Parts: sequence; C-alpha cells; structure tokens
Amino acid sequence: MATDPIPLAQALIRCRSVTPADDGALDVVQRALEPLGFACTRLTFGPDDYRVGNLFARRGGGGPHLCYAGHTDVVPPGDLGAWSDDPFGGVVRDGLLFGRGACDMKGGIAAFIAGLTDYLAARPDHPGSISLLITGDEEARSVDGTAKVLEWMQAEGKVPDMALVGEPTSRRALGDTIKIGRRGSLTARIAVQGRQGHSAYPAQADNPIHRLVAALGPLLAAPLDNGSEFFPPSTLQVTGFDVGNAASNVIPAQARAMLNIRFNDLHTSEALTERLHAALRAAGCAYEMQAECSGESFLTRPGPFVEALSRAIARSTGVEPALDTGGGTSDARFIARYCPVAEFGAVGATLHQVNEHAPVEELRRLAAAYRAVLEEILG
Amino acid sequence: MATDPIPLAQALIRCRSVTPADDGALDVVQRALEPLGFACTRLTFGPDDYRVGNLFARRGGGGPHLCYAGHTDVVPPGDLGAWSDDPFGGVVRDGLLFGRGACDMKGGIAAFIAGLTDYLAARPDHPGSISLLITGDEEARSVDGTAKVLEWMQAEGKVPDMALVGEPTSRRALGDTIKIGRRGSLTARIAVQGRQGHSAYPAQADNPIHRLVAALGPLLAAPLDNGSEFFPPSTLQVTGFDVGNAASNVIPAQARAMLNIRFNDLHTSEALTERLHAALRAAGCAYEMQAECSGESFLTRPGPFVEALSRAIARSTGVEPALDTGGGTSDARFIARYCPVAEFGAVGATLHQVNEHAPVEELRRLAAAYRAVLEEILG
Repeated sequence: MATDPIPLAQALIRCRSVTPADDGALDVVQRALEPLGFACTRLTFGPDDYRVGNLFARRGGGGPHLCYAGHTDVVPPGDLGAWSDDPFGGVVRDGLLFGRGACDMKGGIAAFIAGLTDYLAARPDHPGSISLLITGDEEARSVDGTAKVLEWMQAEGKVPDMALVGEPTSRRALGDTIKIGRRGSLTARIAVQGRQGHSAYPAQADNPIHRLVAALGPLLAAPLDNGSEFFPPSTLQVTGFDVGNAASNVIPAQARAMLNIRFNDLHTSEALTERLHAALRAAGCAYEMQAECSGESFLTRPGPFVEALSRAIARSTGVEPALDTGGGTSDARFIARYCPVAEFGAVGATLHQVNEHAPVEELRRLAAAYRAVLEEILG
Repeated sequence: MATDPIPLAQALIRCRSVTPADDGALDVVQRALEPLGFACTRLTFGPDDYRVGNLFARRGGGGPHLCYAGHTDVVPPGDLGAWSDDPFGGVVRDGLLFGRGACDMKGGIAAFIAGLTDYLAARPDHPGSISLLITGDEEARSVDGTAKVLEWMQAEGKVPDMALVGEPTSRRALGDTIKIGRRGSLTARIAVQGRQGHSAYPAQADNPIHRLVAALGPLLAAPLDNGSEFFPPSTLQVTGFDVGNAASNVIPAQARAMLNIRFNDLHTSEALTERLHAALRAAGCAYEMQAECSGESFLTRPGPFVEALSRAIARSTGVEPALDTGGGTSDARFIARYCPVAEFGAVGATLHQVNEHAPVEELRRLAAAYRAVLEEILG
C-alpha cells in the first residue's frame, strides 16, 4: 500500500507560512525526513528584518546525487472572504485538498516525501544519494533561499549531480509537461531628460517624449528573435510610460518608461541591457536607466537526466511529457548554475488563486511518479 | 505737440481687468473716444457665469473702413511678491511704464487712441471711416469677444474693409515686424484601449503603449511640411503620454497621449485630425480621440493693405518691417474670416511676465506710427 501524501500536505498547509514566514513548516518537513535516515541541516539567512529559514537534508554521501528542490513559503491568501474554506485549514472535500500551497507547492513536497518513503522501503540500500533543498524564500525576494543554500552546498562539497524542482509544471494532465528551462527576466526603468518649453516654439525645447518614442519604436518594430530550439520568442513589453504634464501647450522636461523583457537562451541580460542603451543613444536621449535582471535564462538540454525523468513519468502516469520552457521564473534558475535541473510537478491550475486546491488522487499519482523517478535515476 | 499716450495707458492699467473682468477698462476707452466723434456700442456676451464686455466704436460711415482691434483684458499678475511695483499701479520709473498690460496691450490701445487724436486734429474730414473693436475676452476663452462682435458687425453691415490688430508684434525695435498670418493650433487627447495582462504572456494581452508608440512614431518621423511662402514648418509636439502603471510585469489596459499641432496655411485642422485618425487606425488602435482647434491658420497675402501699412511704419519708425507669421494665436484669426487683417504693435519682450513694462518713448513712437498708418491708408 502506497504512502498517502495527504496527511503531510495537510500538516504543511496548516502552517501559516506566508512568505517569508515559516510557522513550523520546515519542522514538519524535517520530522518527516529524519525517520527516513536523512541528515538535516537548518540554514538561516537574511537581514535582521527578513530572516529566512532553509532546510538541507541528505541521505547517503555517494554519487549520483539527486537533489529535490522546493519551497514551503506561500503567497498571501488574498481576500479571505472569497475563500470557501480556511486557506490554512487543509480541508479535503469532494476529493479536493483545499488550501494555500495545495499546488504551489506544499502538495508537491508531501508527494515527493511520500514517494520517497515508498522508494526507500523498497530500496533501503539504493546507490548514490538523495537530498532535499527546501527554502522559505521563493515567492518574494528569493535572495536568502535557494541561492544561498547552493553557495553553502558548494562550500561544503555537496553540489548535486542533478536536481528536480517540484513546481507544478503539468498543464492539463499530470505528467504532460516537464520544464527544462525558463526564460530570463529583465526590468528596465528609463528617465529621459529633455528641455521644457512652449509647444509653439519646439526649436527652443527638447521633447523627451519624442526621443523616448524614437528609442522605443525600433525596439518594438522587430521581434527580439524568432524563438530557439526549446524556447518561444523572447518578448519585450513596455509596461509604463509617464510624463505627468497637464498643459497641452507645454513640452515637458522629462519622460519615464518601464520595460520588461522575457528572454530565451539566445540572450543574456547584459547584452539586452546594452541593446537598450544603444537604442536610447541612437535616439539622442539624455537618460538614466536602471536595469535589473531577476534571473538569466537557462536551459538543461535533453540528455541522460531529462530522458530518465521523461521515461519515469511516462511509465508512471501513462502520459508522454512535453519538454517546455514557458512561464515565469522559479528557483531552478539558481540551480542551473551548478548542475542539470528540470522541473516536474502537479497541475498548477489554481496556484496563487483564491480557493487553491489539488485533487487528492493527483497528489497520490504524483507521489507514485516521484517514486518512479527515483527508481529510474538511482536504480 | 503730439498727444501723450501715457496717461491713458496708466488709466487702463489701473483697471484690474484680469480676464474676463473689466473693472471699468472699457469705460476708460469709451470716454476717450466719444469726444473724438466716435459712436460707441457696448456689447455683452457670454453665459451668466462668464459675462464679457465688448466695445464697438465707429467714426464715419463710408469706405474704406479701417478697424483697429484690441483687448483690455490681461493675464493674471502671478506672484505679486515678485513684482517691484503694483501690477495695477501704472508706475513710470526710469522711462518705463510698469504694469500688467503695459505691452499686452493696454499700452497699444492708448498709443492708437493718441495717434488717432492727432490724426483727427489734422484731418477732421478724413475719407472713409475708422472703428475700434475692443474686447474683454482675448486672453482666456476668446469665445464671447472678437468672434461674437464680428458676427454682430456682419449682421449690422459694419464689416470693415481691413483690420489692424494692435498686439505687440515688434521683436527688437519698434516697427521691425508686422504679422500677416498666424499658425493654427490643434490639440488632441487620445486614449488607446488595450487588454491588460502579464508581461510574461503578451500574446494573451494587447499592449496599448506599443500601439500608441507605433501610431506616434510615423507622425514624428517626418515633418508635417517644410514651411510655405510665408510660414515656418508646421510642428507636432506630443506633450503628454501617461499610463499610471506601477507594476513592471503588468501590461496596462490603457495609455493616454496629448498632442499639440501648430500648423501653417498648408493644413486645416480637419485634415490634420484625419491624419491623426489614420495613424491610430494604421497602428490598430482601439481608441478615443478628442481634437480641439483653437484657431485655424490664416494668411493675409501681401497686397495694398499690407503694403500701405509697411510704408507708414517705415516712414514713421525708420525701420523696414518684416512680414512674419510666427508666434501663438491672436484674435486676428477671427477677423481673417471677414477681411484682410494684419497685426502691428509694441515690442512684447515682457508680455505675460512679472514686471511687465513698456518704454514710455516706445509707446509715444507707436502713437506716431499709428497716426502714420491712418494717414497712409485713409489719406
């Protein structure tokens, strides 16, 4: 009889771990892992007013070393009145587990530990080693979580050979999608300085709106690329353009714009930032730009790890997973600097929404799929 | 001995006729004209909360009929603490007459009446007729002033054969510039409607900023024209562009822009409005646009009237006037629909500014120039 992930998922949901709070969630994970033979290390990072808890747990010391990565923090529940149940209640009704984190991703962590329990029962002397990297800082800053734990792991000689992130990647049916990469994200804030004047005498002024339109026009006229082997085309969206001038006959002194670029493996944030600078210079802008990259793009090219993962999922779920690189960012972007990383988890239809829930049967099938992954990769 | 315009100018400045208030200014003008044989008609127009006084005064009934047009309303004084004198005091110091309206254009009205007084003393039986159209609604709405008086004049069979507007047209030296036309002004307010979405998934949204940039780009890329025989090139200035979106990863639902076009005699506001519509349609914008024309462009082509005006000014001031069409709008745009109109007046260096002033000697020379104009045109 397979281990049921639901009680552990409920225990996790009942911790009010709205990012970056922990409220005992990592203790729940640690108490589940220690009986399975995992050596647990708690790692706390961050400034005094933003302390973040993390857990690194490992069983065995040899290779290959497979790391499962996840997070116990959740986004806020939002309007409590709109929830049909307590978002921290872990209620099961009509075959659905309700609660913040049910899909993203307390349900996933519980499923992995359930599958792991059954795997270890059958293969107590498995080759290689298994670790879990569980952070409480994924949903907001993502500064003192996975990235810092990885630095610590490197210093300790614990960098894994491959990593599986348990984000809810499935689209319609469990197993239909593995993420093998993510686009990068670059946000730029631009202020173009002109010279104020009267609209009847533009020769005596310098219109910053005109310069900004001239800089943005060519950037928007052509796509950044046409996509790559595993990625859709990169996108550039101007999400802000503001002047704040009420007088129709006054040429304003300054215009500001905000851009967000989601870029594939054909770009780096550095090259894209330089492209923005070049467009602004070409339009003769006197400007200041602040560019911030919240994650470079990454790609784990199909190889032994991704193939083993796909085989296990297909065998367990009956669905042949597609290799996908869409969507936003996840902590996989940090792990990609160290080792091959892929993401596989539940259907995330209700993640971040009111009445977030996961079908009980889906979490049980996810546990079985994770067990199959361990079998396929470690033997 | 020539009549001194300064006492009349001071009397006008001492009326606090901040637009559309009159504070007795038209009475001052009427009291100066009636002894000269002018039949005065007061015409009040406008809604209950914006009543505007106007004065039509005429001497003689035959042709040619020369009309002098001006306004007794003034712009607000602004920061009173920044004035060295009472803006409504009419102080003369160091040969300068200080006060709101000293150049624009109470000084000009006083100069015309002074020159007129001397002309009539010498030519009491001059041919043709002389009229004055003085309004109190030029500096703000310009709805219930000159335009309405002209309608009344037309209904009464009093449309002049030519008109001289006394705005301060001289640039550096009295007499150096006559305005024979003015550019038109068109203001457009545009709201482009898009579909909100996440910047990571632009295919599911419709970015109104991109559409607006695509519409504006071609409008800004090429000049509207290269100028005409008497006009500089038309100009299009985008004076506003606002979105009001704070989230860098959100594609906003709406973007707004504001444009001001100053156009020469190669365009009409109707054709320019259609050009804006075409640019917005070409960029696929779902939009609303409000276009408002505060005045069409006009041109009084050089002919007998402008030539006589130029001759009189050159004879009186020793300066050969240039024919100009620059600057903002004036009430001449209304008069141009009825008869040839030109503008000639003082140097407007300090108009609308703090410490507005006019040199006493310049106003006296302006009075002599206006007398020369009457001699040249009426004989």
